[in-house]
Amino acid sequence: MIIQFKKPVNNQILEELKTKFAQIPKQVLVIDNHMAVIDLDHFDFSDQESSAIDEVITKTPTYVLGSRLFHPEDTIIKLPHSEIGGNTFTMMAGPCSVESEEHIKRMAMVAREGGATLLRGGAFKPRTTPYSFQGLGEEGLRFMREAADELGMDVITEIMDETHVPMAAKYTDVIQIGARNMQNFSLLKAVGKTQIPVALKRGLAGTIDDLLNAAEYIASGGNHNIMLIERGIRTFDNKYTRNTFDLAAVPVLQKLTHYPIIVDPSHAVGAWDLVAPMAYAGTASGASGMIVEIHDDPAHAFSDGAQSLKPDTYLTMTKHVFALKQLMDSWED
Amino acid sequence: MIIQFKKPVNNQILEELKTKFAQIPKQVLVIDNHMAVIDLDHFDFSDQESSAIDEVITKTPTYVLGSRLFHPEDTIIKLPHSEIGGNTFTMMAGPCSVESEEHIKRMAMVAREGGATLLRGGAFKPRTTPYSFQGLGEEGLRFMREAADELGMDVITEIMDETHVPMAAKYTDVIQIGARNMQNFSLLKAVGKTQIPVALKRGLAGTIDDLLNAAEYIASGGNHNIMLIERGIRTFDNKYTRNTFDLAAVPVLQKLTHYPIIVDPSHAVGAWDLVAPMAYAGTASGASGMIVEIHDDPAHAFSDGAQSLKPDTYLTMTKHVFALKQLMDSWED
Amino acid sequence: MIIQFKKPVNNQILEELKTKFAQIPKQVLVIDNHMAVIDLDHFDFSDQESSAIDEVITKTPTYVLGSRLFHPEDTIIKLPHSEIGGNTFTMMAGPCSVESEEHIKRMAMVAREGGATLLRGGAFKPRTTPYSFQGLGEEGLRFMREAADELGMDVITEIMDETHVPMAAKYTDVIQIGARNMQNFSLLKAVGKTQIPVALKRGLAGTIDDLLNAAEYIASGGNHNIMLIERGIRTFDNKYTRNTFDLAAVPVLQKLTHYPIIVDPSHAVGAWDLVAPMAYAGTASGASGMIVEIHDDPAHAFSDGAQSLKPDTYLTMTKHVFALKQLMDSWED
Amino acid sequence: MIIQFKKPVNNQILEELKTKFAQIPKQVLVIDNHMAVIDLDHFDFSDQESSAIDEVITKTPTYVLGSRLFHPEDTIIKLPHSEIGGNTFTMMAGPCSVESEEHIKRMAMVAREGGATLLRGGAFKPRTTPYSFQGLGEEGLRFMREAADELGMDVITEIMDETHVPMAAKYTDVIQIGARNMQNFSLLKAVGKTQIPVALKRGLAGTIDDLLNAAEYIASGGNHNIMLIERGIRTFDNKYTRNTFDLAAVPVLQKLTHYPIIVDPSHAVGAWDLVAPMAYAGTASGASGMIVEIHDDPAHAFSDGAQSLKPDTYLTMTKHVFALKQLMDSWED
Repeated sequence: MIIQFKKPVNNQILEELKTKFAQIPKQVLVIDNHMAVIDLDHFDFSDQESSAIDEVITKTPTYVLGSRLFHPEDTIIKLPHSEIGGNTFTMMAGPCSVESEEHIKRMAMVAREGGATLLRGGAFKPRTTPYSFQGLGEEGLRFMREAADELGMDVITEIMDETHVPMAAKYTDVIQIGARNMQNFSLLKAVGKTQIPVALKRGLAGTIDDLLNAAEYIASGGNHNIMLIERGIRTFDNKYTRNTFDLAAVPVLQKLTHYPIIVDPSHAVGAWDLVAPMAYAGTASGASGMIVEIHDDPAHAFSDGAQSLKPDTYLTMTKHVFALKQLMDSWED
Repeated sequence: MIIQFKKPVNNQILEELKTKFAQIPKQVLVIDNHMAVIDLDHFDFSDQESSAIDEVITKTPTYVLGSRLFHPEDTIIKLPHSEIGGNTFTMMAGPCSVESEEHIKRMAMVAREGGATLLRGGAFKPRTTPYSFQGLGEEGLRFMREAADELGMDVITEIMDETHVPMAAKYTDVIQIGARNMQNFSLLKAVGKTQIPVALKRGLAGTIDDLLNAAEYIASGGNHNIMLIERGIRTFDNKYTRNTFDLAAVPVLQKLTHYPIIVDPSHAVGAWDLVAPMAYAGTASGASGMIVEIHDDPAHAFSDGAQSLKPDTYLTMTKHVFALKQLMDSWED
Repeated sequence: MIIQFKKPVNNQILEELKTKFAQIPKQVLVIDNHMAVIDLDHFDFSDQESSAIDEVITKTPTYVLGSRLFHPEDTIIKLPHSEIGGNTFTMMAGPCSVESEEHIKRMAMVAREGGATLLRGGAFKPRTTPYSFQGLGEEGLRFMREAADELGMDVITEIMDETHVPMAAKYTDVIQIGARNMQNFSLLKAVGKTQIPVALKRGLAGTIDDLLNAAEYIASGGNHNIMLIERGIRTFDNKYTRNTFDLAAVPVLQKLTHYPIIVDPSHAVGAWDLVAPMAYAGTASGASGMIVEIHDDPAHAFSDGAQSLKPDTYLTMTKHVFALKQLMDSWED
Repeated sequence: MIIQFKKPVNNQILEELKTKFAQIPKQVLVIDNHMAVIDLDHFDFSDQESSAIDEVITKTPTYVLGSRLFHPEDTIIKLPHSEIGGNTFTMMAGPCSVESEEHIKRMAMVAREGGATLLRGGAFKPRTTPYSFQGLGEEGLRFMREAADELGMDVITEIMDETHVPMAAKYTDVIQIGARNMQNFSLLKAVGKTQIPVALKRGLAGTIDDLLNAAEYIASGGNHNIMLIERGIRTFDNKYTRNTFDLAAVPVLQKLTHYPIIVDPSHAVGAWDLVAPMAYAGTASGASGMIVEIHDDPAHAFSDGAQSLKPDTYLTMTKHVFALKQLMDSWED
C-alpha cells in the first residue's frame, strides 16, 4: 500500500501511522509525502487520518520504492561533474579494464573528447574463467581516479563483493554492479547501506521485474541513487552478437520506474562494428545515457578487445549520438 | 564455391564450366558474372578457364545467393510506386486485418499521409487459435487493392500457403510470409517460382542463419526480389513486450546479405505506446524501411488492437522517423 | 463454455440449444454428451434446458476440444497394428530419411526387433537449406509402406503441405507435422478435414499453449485422432545439444489434454550418445510412446546421421525402455 | 596443456618443469600425475623430460581441472554419513527454509525415512524481493545441524557471500551456491580456499561451459570437492513450469567432467505435482543424486510452498526413485 499524504505533511499523523503499521507488524518506508507499507492491502483509517491523506494506492508492485506510483518524478543523480537522469544524456566511456596508469590517462582523454563526463574502467573483472586477467585491483582504482581528476571527470567502476565497498567509497563516484551479480543480494544490501550512486546492470536472464526487484534491495537499504543499465540478455541467437540488446526495455522501464535508464551497446553486441548502429538505436529509444568501451589497440586489450571502439570510431559515434539527442530534444511530443 | 568471372564474361567458358559442374553432379546458379556451385570446395581449373576468372571464393555460407560474397551490391526492389533497399527509407502502414472496404480506404489515407508508399493489411490471418477471426479472404485483397490504387500506393499482404499464390499475383505487389511460416519450405518454394517481391519475416525462434537460409529457398527458385523483416524473437521476458526486438539483427544482416532489411516495431513489442520509441530505434539502427500497424479504433480492431497506433500517434511518429533518417543521411560516415 | 449433458442425452434439447447458439452467432462443437460453445461465458438456460444438463463449465481454455474439461478420458488412437495413448507405451523407429527400398526394409526389421510397431521415415524432408537432400517423395512413401506391410507395422511420416494430403491418405497410417510447421495453419486445417491420425510436433518456440491451440486447428476440423510430440525447444544453450528437451512438458500436457504425449529424444538432443539416457528419462516422465531415429551407417545417412542410433544401441535401449515401463506399470500410484 | 606423467611420477622432473613454466610465466596446477599448464599450447620438452611423460594433451577446455581429460575417474565426495558420486545415488531432502527448531527436526525425520542421507534447508534465503522472508541466519544453521546430528545425516545449506564461510565451516557438510550466485566469483574463490564440499547450482542463464568454468574457480583455489546441480534454466515457456528442466545436461556433464551431477526437480518445475515425474526422469537420466523440497504444510511454508512435496508424496516418490535406480544398476551397459 502506498499512502500519499497531503502537503504540507501532517507529521504527527504520519508518525502515528508509522507506529501503528510497525505494530502489526508491517515494514514501512517513507520518502517525502509518500509512505509505503509492505504487504498491506487494506487498512481502516480514522477520519482524522483520512483527512491528512491525499490518496491510497493499494495495488503496488513489489518494487514499491522504485515505482512511479511511489515516486512519480524522474530521479536525477548528481555527481561532481555530471548529472544523470531526466532529460540529460550522459556519456560514459573508457577501456574495459584499467591496464596501466598511462593507458587509462590516454583513454580518459579520448573519452572526454567524445563528450563523456564519466570515465569507466574495471579494476575488479568478473571473468568467465579463473585463468583470465582478473584486474589490477586497488592500484587500478587509483590510476582511474587520478585520470578522471585530471580531466574533471567522474568515475564509474565495478565492484564484485561487499568487501570492496570501502575501497569504492574512496575512489569512485558510481559503483557498478555487473550483470552476473544482479541478484547477488548480499552485495546489493551492502551498497544499499551507502549513499554512493549505483549503476545496476540487468542480468543475462533478468526479467524487467527481476531488475526492479534487485534495485529495490538497494533502495530499501536507504540508497536511492540508482540507475539501471540495459546490456543485452541471453537468447538462442548468439552467433553474430554476444547477447540480444533489448532496447524496448528502455521505454518499458521508463514507464515503470523513476530511475535513469542507461544503455550499454558494447556488451550487448560484443562486436565493435555493431556498436555504433546500436548506440544510435539506444539513443533513439530514449535512454538517459550510454556506457561504451574504447581502446586504442583492441587487439591487445587485456579484456573485451573485440567490442572496444577505436578512438576515431568512438569520436564519430558520439558526435552522431549527440546530434540524434539534439534532434529528439527539439520534438515537442 | 563462388566463381567471379572477369567482365565482359566469357560466356563460352562459363557455359562449359556449368556443364562440367552439372556432370559431377553439382548444382549451379548464375547471376551476372557470379556463379555459385553448391557443395564444391575445390576444382582444378584449366589455364584457359582460369584466365576468364577474376576470383574464386571457396568458403561460402549455405545461403550463397543471398550473401554479399555472391552479390556485393544492395538489392533494390522496384515497385510501381515505391523503391525498397539501398539508401531509401520506405514506410509501410495499415491495419492488421482488412476489416471492410470503407475501413481500409480510410486507413490507407492515414498511412499515405504519414509517408507510407505501401499499404499493409491482412486478408488471410495466421491466428493462434482456430476460433479467432481468420480474415476476409479474397474479398479483403480486392478491397485493399482498390484502396491502394486510389492513392497510388503499393500493396503488401500475407499469404499462408501455396494455393494463395495465384490470388496474390492478382492483387498484391509484395507477398509477405509471416513469422510462423518462415520455415514453411513448401510456401517458400512456391513464391520462389514467381517474380513477385517477397517480404520474409523472421520466425520467433529463427536465427540469423535460419532466416538467410529460408530466403535462399526463395532465391534458389529464381526469385531474387526479397526483403527481410525483423519483428522480434521469443525470449524469456514477455511480460511487458510480446517479443524481444532484436535490432542488432539489422546491421548484422546488412553485413551478410544484400537484401533490404525492414523493421516491424508493432509485432516486436505488441503494445502501442512502445511502438514509437522502437520505431525511432529501428530507424537509427539503419533499417531500409518500416512496417507498422495503424487503426482508428484499436479497442474494436478485428485483431492486434493493442499494438495499433492511432492516426495521430502514427503521424507524429512518422514525422520523427523521417527526420531521423534525414539527419542520418547527412552523416558522411 | 462447455455444457455437459446428462446421460442419456436429451437430443431434442441439445439440438435446440445448438440452434440458439448458432443464431447468436456462436460456434458450437459437440462430442458425445459435451457441447463446447466458443466465446460464450454466460447463458440463461430455461428450466427445461437446465434439467437436461449436468454441468456448465464457463472458464475454459481456448483449446476447448483438446482440454480434459471437455474430454476427461485419454484419447486412444487405434491403428491396424498399434494402439497409442492411455497406459500403452508405443515405440516408433526408423531412419530419418527413406533412402532406398532396400535400406528402409532393413531398418524396418531393426525397428521391429526393438519392439517398434510404427515405422518412421521421411519422404519429404524439411531441411534448413534448399541445397540439402529434400527426400525421395512419393517413391519413398511407397518403399516405406511396403517395408511396413511386410512386417505388420504401421507407418508414420511427415508431410509438408496440404497438397501432400491425398498421397498421405494412400500410404501412411499417421501423418506427422514437423516442428517448423506447428503453426502452418493451412496444413493443420487440411489434415483436420481427414480422419487420418496426426502426430503434431512442438515447434522450436512453441509454448505449451501454442501446441494445444495448434492441435485445436486439427480438432475443430473434425479430426480428433491427435498425438503431441515433445522434441526439444530452442534455448540459449545449444553447444552440446541441438535443442533443450523439455520433459516437464509431458506431465504438464497430460494434465491439460487427453491426447497421447510422445517423446522424441533424437531431435531433442541431436547427438546419438545422448539419446539413450534421454529415452530413459522420457519413459520415466510418463510419456505414452517414443519416436527415435536409427541408421546402420550413420556416417553416410542422407540426413541426421549424428543423432541416429546404430542397431545395437537401439536394441539395448529399447530393452531398457520397456523394462522401465514395466517397472512403472507395477506402481500403484 | 595437460601433461600426464608416467607412474611412478619422476618428481624431480615434475618440479623442474613446474619451475620452467612458472618462469614463462604460466600458471601450473598439479594433481597426482597430471599437470595442467594454463594457456600453453606448445612446449619443447627435453628427451629426459619426455621420457618421464606418458602423454601431452594440447587441446584442453578452459575448465581444465574439472575436465575428464585431466581427471578421468569420477570424483567421489565422502561425507560423514554419505558418499556422493560414482555409482551411488544420494538423496537430499528437507524444507526450503529452516522455519523453527521443531519443524526442521520433523522434516528431517521425513527426509530420512525416504532414504535421504543429507538434510537440506535454507538459513540464508536469496529472495527475489527484499521484503520476503530472508531466513533465520545462524540460528537456522544451528537448528539444522542438531536435527541432522540426531538422525545421523549430513547437512547441505546455501551461503550467500564470503562472510558466511566461517559459519558454514562450523555447521554444514556441504556448502550450496545458488543459481543466482553461480557467477559470483568472489564467493566461488572464497569457498575454493576451504576443503568443504561445494554444491554448485547452474544459473538461470548458465550454459554448460559457464557452469564448468564457475566450478573451475573453486577447483583452482584448491577445493576439488565439487558437485554440480541441474535445476532448470530460464526459457520462453514458464507458464506451467518455473524453469525448463534440462535433463540432457546430466549425460552431457558426465561426459565432460568427473564431478557428481545432481538433479533438483523441485526448483526446475516449481509445482509439486510435477516433481515426482521429473524426479523419475532425473533418475533415469543417470544423475548421481537428487535434492528435493518437502513440507508438511506447504500452504503455510515460509518459502517455495508451491513446489514442496508433502511427506506422503515424498515417501512414495523416493521409493520409486530407488526402484528405478536399482533396475538401472542391473543393466550391464
